[in-house]
Amino acid sequence: MESKSESSEWGSGVWAHLTTVRQRSPLVQCITNFVSMDLVANTLLSAGASPAMVHSVVEIPDFTPHIHALCVNVGTLTPDWLPSMKSAAELASKLGKPWVLDPAAVSCSGFRLKSCLELVELKPTVIKGNGSEIIALSSASPGQTRGADSSHESTDAIEAAKSLAFSSGAIVAVSGAVDIVTDGKRVIGVHNGTKMMQKITATGCSLAGLIAAFLAVDQLQPLEATVSAMSVFGIAGELGEAMSKGPASLRMHLIDSLYGLDETMVLSRVNITRLG
Amino acid sequence: MESKSESSEWGSGVWAHLTTVRQRSPLVQCITNFVSMDLVANTLLSAGASPAMVHSVVEIPDFTPHIHALCVNVGTLTPDWLPSMKSAAELASKLGKPWVLDPAAVSCSGFRLKSCLELVELKPTVIKGNGSEIIALSSASPGQTRGADSSHESTDAIEAAKSLAFSSGAIVAVSGAVDIVTDGKRVIGVHNGTKMMQKITATGCSLAGLIAAFLAVDQLQPLEATVSAMSVFGIAGELGEAMSKGPASLRMHLIDSLYGLDETMVLSRVNITRLG
Amino acid sequence: MESKSESSEWGSGVWAHLTTVRQRSPLVQCITNFVSMDLVANTLLSAGASPAMVHSVVEIPDFTPHIHALCVNVGTLTPDWLPSMKSAAELASKLGKPWVLDPAAVSCSGFRLKSCLELVELKPTVIKGNGSEIIALSSASPGQTRGADSSHESTDAIEAAKSLAFSSGAIVAVSGAVDIVTDGKRVIGVHNGTKMMQKITATGCSLAGLIAAFLAVDQLQPLEATVSAMSVFGIAGELGEAMSKGPASLRMHLIDSLYGLDETMVLSRVNITRLG
Repeated sequence: MESKSESSEWGSGVWAHLTTVRQRSPLVQCITNFVSMDLVANTLLSAGASPAMVHSVVEIPDFTPHIHALCVNVGTLTPDWLPSMKSAAELASKLGKPWVLDPAAVSCSGFRLKSCLELVELKPTVIKGNGSEIIALSSASPGQTRGADSSHESTDAIEAAKSLAFSSGAIVAVSGAVDIVTDGKRVIGVHNGTKMMQKITATGCSLAGLIAAFLAVDQLQPLEATVSAMSVFGIAGELGEAMSKGPASLRMHLIDSLYGLDETMVLSRVNITRLG
Repeated sequence: MESKSESSEWGSGVWAHLTTVRQRSPLVQCITNFVSMDLVANTLLSAGASPAMVHSVVEIPDFTPHIHALCVNVGTLTPDWLPSMKSAAELASKLGKPWVLDPAAVSCSGFRLKSCLELVELKPTVIKGNGSEIIALSSASPGQTRGADSSHESTDAIEAAKSLAFSSGAIVAVSGAVDIVTDGKRVIGVHNGTKMMQKITATGCSLAGLIAAFLAVDQLQPLEATVSAMSVFGIAGELGEAMSKGPASLRMHLIDSLYGLDETMVLSRVNITRLG
Repeated sequence: MESKSESSEWGSGVWAHLTTVRQRSPLVQCITNFVSMDLVANTLLSAGASPAMVHSVVEIPDFTPHIHALCVNVGTLTPDWLPSMKSAAELASKLGKPWVLDPAAVSCSGFRLKSCLELVELKPTVIKGNGSEIIALSSASPGQTRGADSSHESTDAIEAAKSLAFSSGAIVAVSGAVDIVTDGKRVIGVHNGTKMMQKITATGCSLAGLIAAFLAVDQLQPLEATVSAMSVFGIAGELGEAMSKGPASLRMHLIDSLYGLDETMVLSRVNITRLG
């Protein structure tokens, strides 16, 4: 019963966030990887936000001041893209605009890890990754003790997330069987979503974009906005999976469901609990 | 009745254009933004054309002479792509091949506006944008008086389109609730399409590619070819929406419908009128 | 009856390959064109493999040693991508990891042809193209007599494929109405697949990625692994087409079908014969 009533309290907030995104249609600049651009843009459009895939370093001084939030994803990072990411992140931070860092596959190279650490220094509002990514980034961050990360169990991820939140000042969101969101003190679990979403490329990137849109409409409560975005995306996935025969139809029904979500669907499905 | 008979006259031309694209399968080079490459290619394939996403400046001298039409879209412009766009556009113009400029998000930076103005000087056959883009490009073009463009009403777009057509020598196409096509004198309205198409990323880019394919089979009548492409794409959207539950299923049914369009569907749905 | 029993023998091997890919989830690095990244990644995920779109030259020394197979596709080649492709291919060869070269549109420029010839020298395990591409690459390879390639008939493609296999040491796979796979001596025909798959962009690129995944689990029998991948992809297309109304729904059902393939579907549909 407690869990039920807890979710009920969260539910109205989740719905309020989604409604506000639809009303305000925040402009979200995405500097994301090539694989995900299509799905990130379509996710944002179906949620009611306004995506802008502007990544040229020469356009950032003109464009970034007009955005409401920024999403940076390093999934297909090359050295020539890093200055754009840093420039946009720096400007967003300076202008008080929320921004999300998605350290996709951060461990795949020393270059990528170093780049992510540099981006973390530019004060992202939210860092969103899967368990392995958050553990890797956390253990490489200044002031951390490198722990063994072979197991990648959810308890490891929680400790890593809290530690990274503490050292970076960011909200840290960990996607997984249960999504975890923490500001370093509170730890919230989002139990929405389905396993098959992992069989679709770029769902994680799309979630990062969605978080940015939600941050744009509730800057003062970044933890709550992040939790809401993760719950909404998960609910759209649950509704989508019920209509799907595999990952590609889920991809379609997920976006359709996100577009069509109504209050009853949201309130009846929100599943959020306090974990710590 | 007049509107009906007007559309009937256009209808046979629209169907003839589509049939010819299917028969000849024109080779359409697309230098387009990263977000749209997949949908632009699939739109062209489903219409019966042959897309080629060739954008390297070193390949243009070898490749562009073999194409039937070119589409240039600045949606994710960076300085290193501009020479390719200019080189291909220049060669297309020199060889008498039609080409389409899509000044996507032209106002997002001074760099992008300047680049688009340079591309306009290379004599595109058609310039296609939404109302805001055409107004911005028109008012920045040489010899224009900058007008207030805050309202972006359709009447503003018509005047901007006529003015840009006059100064550039291009057919100007404006997508919107009613699509507008003008050569600076005649103004044609295409009333096909559905609002939800705006909730799918890259539909505008795909329309630009489709216009290029239609131009390839009727170079002497670029206004008529442009009108036909816009009507065909809109009709595919209408048929698609009837089967859809949201933007992602519309994206699928739009492409399927474009592939399956037959004469009855086209003739019964074409909705084109003379606006001025 | 002979053909039937021939396919039965192949059938168990095809199913064994797919099962092993699902069990081991090989990590497949893809340096592929922008148009195809989404579909290649989703194809690999739905087959049970683990795709990694890592293309930065600075990341290859760190990342490539961990992969199980590599796929290189030159579909949107620019000079700055070539060093990455060569570096990854060289490292893969050196470390004994299988890799696939997809010489997409190899004839579109002198630069692309030259680049592909340089990549062939780095000893791909498999070269996969359509008839025109294999004929062009074969006739430009050292020690070949340039033949007329105007007809591109399947007999021409077989001879070109055998010749390229002989000169390069690679398995050569030619997609077409009947797919052909040869090691220069044996010639195998794969009769699965449907014509409408050609109306979807990036299906060829996705097949190349899938071949890489199958090579990863059967390095000692690259011809058999390639044949299996082509048959599996074709069967998924056949099952998908039965549910489709056009290319876009086929794209979806193809991926869903690949994800859901079971032993009965595979064994009843495998259609593989010895052609020479």
